[in-house]
Amino acid sequence: MPPQRRSAPSRQLTRSLPHIAIEYVRPELDAGRFAPKRIVGDRIDVSADIFKDGHDLLAAHVRVRGPADSDWRTVPMTYDFDSDRWSADFVADAVGAWRFTVEAWTDRFATWRSELEKKIDAGYEVSSEVLEGAHLIDRAARKSRFGPVRTTLKRWVTALRDSSRHPTERAREAFDPALLALIEEYLPADDLTTYARVLTVRVDRERARFAAWYEMFPRSQGTSPGEHATFADLGPALRRIAGLGFDVVYLPPIHPVGETSRKGRNNALTAAPDDPGSPWAIGSQAGGHTAIEPRLGTLEDFDRFVQQARELGLEIALDYALQCSPDHPWLREHPEWFFVRPDGTIKYAENPPKKYQDIYPLNFWCEDRDALWQACLDILLFWIGHGVYTFRVDNPHTKPFAFWEWVIGEVHARHSDIIFLAEAFTRPKRLEYLAKLGFTQSYTYFTWRNTSSELRDYLTELTQGPAREYLRGNFFANTPDILHEYLQLGGRPAFRVRLLLAATLSPLYGIYSGFELGEHEPLHSGSEEYLHSEKYEIRERDWDAPGNLNADIALVNRMRREHRALQLTTNLSFHHSENDRMLCYLRSATTDAGRDDLLIVVNLDPLHTQDSMVHVPLDRLGLTPDAPYAVEDLLTGARYVWRGSRNYVRLDPREQVGHVLVIR
Amino acid sequence: MPPQRRSAPSRQLTRSLPHIAIEYVRPELDAGRFAPKRIVGDRIDVSADIFKDGHDLLAAHVRVRGPADSDWRTVPMTYDFDSDRWSADFVADAVGAWRFTVEAWTDRFATWRSELEKKIDAGYEVSSEVLEGAHLIDRAARKSRFGPVRTTLKRWVTALRDSSRHPTERAREAFDPALLALIEEYLPADDLTTYARVLTVRVDRERARFAAWYEMFPRSQGTSPGEHATFADLGPALRRIAGLGFDVVYLPPIHPVGETSRKGRNNALTAAPDDPGSPWAIGSQAGGHTAIEPRLGTLEDFDRFVQQARELGLEIALDYALQCSPDHPWLREHPEWFFVRPDGTIKYAENPPKKYQDIYPLNFWCEDRDALWQACLDILLFWIGHGVYTFRVDNPHTKPFAFWEWVIGEVHARHSDIIFLAEAFTRPKRLEYLAKLGFTQSYTYFTWRNTSSELRDYLTELTQGPAREYLRGNFFANTPDILHEYLQLGGRPAFRVRLLLAATLSPLYGIYSGFELGEHEPLHSGSEEYLHSEKYEIRERDWDAPGNLNADIALVNRMRREHRALQLTTNLSFHHSENDRMLCYLRSATTDAGRDDLLIVVNLDPLHTQDSMVHVPLDRLGLTPDAPYAVEDLLTGARYVWRGSRNYVRLDPREQVGHVLVIR
Repeated sequence: MPPQRRSAPSRQLTRSLPHIAIEYVRPELDAGRFAPKRIVGDRIDVSADIFKDGHDLLAAHVRVRGPADSDWRTVPMTYDFDSDRWSADFVADAVGAWRFTVEAWTDRFATWRSELEKKIDAGYEVSSEVLEGAHLIDRAARKSRFGPVRTTLKRWVTALRDSSRHPTERAREAFDPALLALIEEYLPADDLTTYARVLTVRVDRERARFAAWYEMFPRSQGTSPGEHATFADLGPALRRIAGLGFDVVYLPPIHPVGETSRKGRNNALTAAPDDPGSPWAIGSQAGGHTAIEPRLGTLEDFDRFVQQARELGLEIALDYALQCSPDHPWLREHPEWFFVRPDGTIKYAENPPKKYQDIYPLNFWCEDRDALWQACLDILLFWIGHGVYTFRVDNPHTKPFAFWEWVIGEVHARHSDIIFLAEAFTRPKRLEYLAKLGFTQSYTYFTWRNTSSELRDYLTELTQGPAREYLRGNFFANTPDILHEYLQLGGRPAFRVRLLLAATLSPLYGIYSGFELGEHEPLHSGSEEYLHSEKYEIRERDWDAPGNLNADIALVNRMRREHRALQLTTNLSFHHSENDRMLCYLRSATTDAGRDDLLIVVNLDPLHTQDSMVHVPLDRLGLTPDAPYAVEDLLTGARYVWRGSRNYVRLDPREQVGHVLVIR
Repeated sequence: MPPQRRSAPSRQLTRSLPHIAIEYVRPELDAGRFAPKRIVGDRIDVSADIFKDGHDLLAAHVRVRGPADSDWRTVPMTYDFDSDRWSADFVADAVGAWRFTVEAWTDRFATWRSELEKKIDAGYEVSSEVLEGAHLIDRAARKSRFGPVRTTLKRWVTALRDSSRHPTERAREAFDPALLALIEEYLPADDLTTYARVLTVRVDRERARFAAWYEMFPRSQGTSPGEHATFADLGPALRRIAGLGFDVVYLPPIHPVGETSRKGRNNALTAAPDDPGSPWAIGSQAGGHTAIEPRLGTLEDFDRFVQQARELGLEIALDYALQCSPDHPWLREHPEWFFVRPDGTIKYAENPPKKYQDIYPLNFWCEDRDALWQACLDILLFWIGHGVYTFRVDNPHTKPFAFWEWVIGEVHARHSDIIFLAEAFTRPKRLEYLAKLGFTQSYTYFTWRNTSSELRDYLTELTQGPAREYLRGNFFANTPDILHEYLQLGGRPAFRVRLLLAATLSPLYGIYSGFELGEHEPLHSGSEEYLHSEKYEIRERDWDAPGNLNADIALVNRMRREHRALQLTTNLSFHHSENDRMLCYLRSATTDAGRDDLLIVVNLDPLHTQDSMVHVPLDRLGLTPDAPYAVEDLLTGARYVWRGSRNYVRLDPREQVGHVLVIR
């Protein structure tokens, strides 16, 4: 049928067709569009479905290239027969982008050997099979260089072809392990098939997964009450925060604060002469995003401050807020970077009917966007140059996704260890998408999850769902924008509950200063804004005021450093508590020292004593059903003798809000 | 910092960056690598996550192109605010490949209007906003052709810019629906973003999803006992099968049967002179895959047979078995298409230690593979030319995946309505992969699923798991290769149980002739092979022998044709039966005539009477908890009055193995 002949497959076509199916390679995120996240030192488990038609035996390996590698290396894969699932692993020993893919081929020699064995066992005459083996070995010999290897291989070829000997006897020669080694090295891989995509895993430093954050307004940390502090005054503050066991100190914008339309105390439309204004209204005569508010001191003061922090084991995180006050130099130098009204004036920020006259948004898609994006990148590079390796990004969901993917990529190409925390309390899919685009950490809905079921569902979603691959939640117990009703009404116990939950449910957590003093007065009832919000005024505080949580904070932070189980994300499991007001969960890890299991019980009711029977996962803990065992509370040092699965717990929040139990 | 400047994003880069996120488009299979399957007339629901930074309102549509369409058309999408999930649907009204993708853009005018409304409600002065609206309308005007449209739009521009009128009054003009219509047509789409992939859905004809198959050896269907029948003798057989209500008649290979190494009765290594041999040993002096076994008659007889079947509403399915007997013409004409041993002889099939001396496998990757693949395609095109539109493919898992994807694609490019059924009882992932590659239907593990939990788990996997998108299971109750122990030991009730299950659990099912007579003798105990297997000898049968299942078969097949609920795949749900030996499930459909609900209860124990309380899903059936309702058994016509959810069922398998209940 001539017409049909037209479509005969071209030799090129059949040449290019894959012989082997390689499917569902893991870890893979959105068909390779984004990179799953890991931490340096993690073991990366790669797996794939690999199979072929017929009965040939296959071989496969992972091809991997780390950020420090000068070339690709391979890791052999092993497989499970029933599931056709192949796997291998490697340790990601450097920060940066790790690329990998999977290759598979037909293992001709192994196939030949296994069929030969079956035939010999069945008593068949195998002279023809032995000659086929000789042919395979000869192929390997031809692939090898002249010299000893080729000579050795040729000797085997001759031996297998020696018709004077019994075929079965010759066959035995082929099972020599020395031959196998040479074959694996020199026999060309038949049907070599490579997975459709080269995948990437983003590997970050330990701080990206495990850190306790402390947010503070530097201007409030003065030694002389009520006065605007400078970076030169912050030594005591740093020592206090280090003493509480925090790892990261996050500062709201430290840049010159705008004067035009400056907001007064409690967000008043007009500011009093001495009002410091919101630090998020960035830019004044004194400069923009690469300048420092004069009242905070000089760049040199800042450099010393960063150095001082480093000596105390603290890392400084800056706020990256891409917006301008009416006085920002960019409005004069680059009016084309902003939105313009029909009358030619520049547009301030709006979310109708709300107006933000003290803030001008940038037009990221303006005609001159290339210069604008570069300028935004330069801000980050400037502060990195001053020792800042972590950035908390303000409202990333109001800037283009494409910008974030670009700017984070550009920074990581130069400084792969920079950490970006996304402040995005917008709808979940945008929050998740920003994490996929490259943000190292994300704010979460933790602040609004207070009941057992809310916490169980949300933590299960974060630690067991798809997001576990790319979203690292940073659990802030409060922020300058969020004082939850639970804290407003629950008194000191409520603060202790939320501290314990944040610090033990997530390896990443933080508080905003004032939390340790139980500050709980809202702007008005029903509001999550603070009364006398520090965003608009300088706050004085007595850090040792009665009722402070300093001891609690120091304790949980020390616990976190001492227990690997509190430094991981996906090692969380919830367990039944017969009283729903009490939450019971287990954090487990394996260390060189052995297992690290912490069973945690928290009374979520800050106002009343609660008791409950909690169900201990005996099997997981390697405990026998009936034998008694001792548990020790790391919070109090108290010891209890428990037996079996169901055990009694009673917590009076005025004394103690939870147990962190080590099983002895 | 000059060095950093080097990496300024090029205008080309920022131009090409997407403004909008379009994710998780459904239906999508393996990131578009394969095509999900649907049936002509199905409504295709397309959905996607679509969102952008900031507060702009978006718009989106599906771009779709059917096999008959000369161009792409668009279907507007609507969205759910909370989930950012957008959706649209279209009806696939033609067989073939449907391509589609998703596009989204910023709806500037809608965004402008909604913000304007909010500002007016808030009592703001909006003259500037009105001018922005005028600018948008002017953009649309410039996009429109000269003439009435542009004049109309320009008139609105003038009206909105008329500073002599109050801004709010001018604003109202902008809410004129006539204007909105013109804007939607002429205002250029900002931030237009297209989904990363163009996806394909494979649409087949109804028979691909709903059909009752009957497998028979034509040579056994003679009118004169024991004699090898020809296609000219098959009229009565076709009328009988049509009378039983089947749709498809599947014939094992009808090609010349090899003589060299022909297998005798019960798979004996040597055949007696009059033994017909296995039809799967294809090829003799009389020809190969495009010839007909001389004892079956001529090609003309076959053409008449196909025509006769068509007149009876039956479709003929042929076996596509790509292997050759030692006498196949290809061994002489194309020895290079086969595997050759070191001594130059051609290799017969082996699966060590098993040998198949009567069958020679093809070497699909031989040097001359292009000609071989084309010849294999030509076989299909030849029989399609003779009215065969359905092929049952023998052992596809022993031929390259790449070949199947190519040959099915080539056939569908010419004849989009051809159906391919894959015989692959190999490991699950290969079976599933063949379905992804393009096979229309697949044999399943149904034959080996006999208990409640086995059936529930397997059907749930097929109808609710990922496979539902691409794998259509054809439930054969028996085949010439598989006589399950359940049938060997369960007597007549066992056959009735498996018939009822196959016919009511799956819209695709089949039996191999002899099943209706309860043939149950294995080659030997422990074997699934038939004694006196028809693969090696001609069988005589009295189709009206006592104990036959003709009435049962005719009844279930009529039921299937009368009830839409039995013609769909994913409309199955299992419901609790307090006795595990009884299986209870619901099949639901909506038709123009209203709902079609069938509640089916089957006693899986062929040897003993079983009773159970079954739990009726009242809510699903729109029944009130306490009111009584009548159920009618379609198998017996018996009526019962039931009340509430728990109801009593008792089935004696010697009388009745199940109920198919319609709720009145």
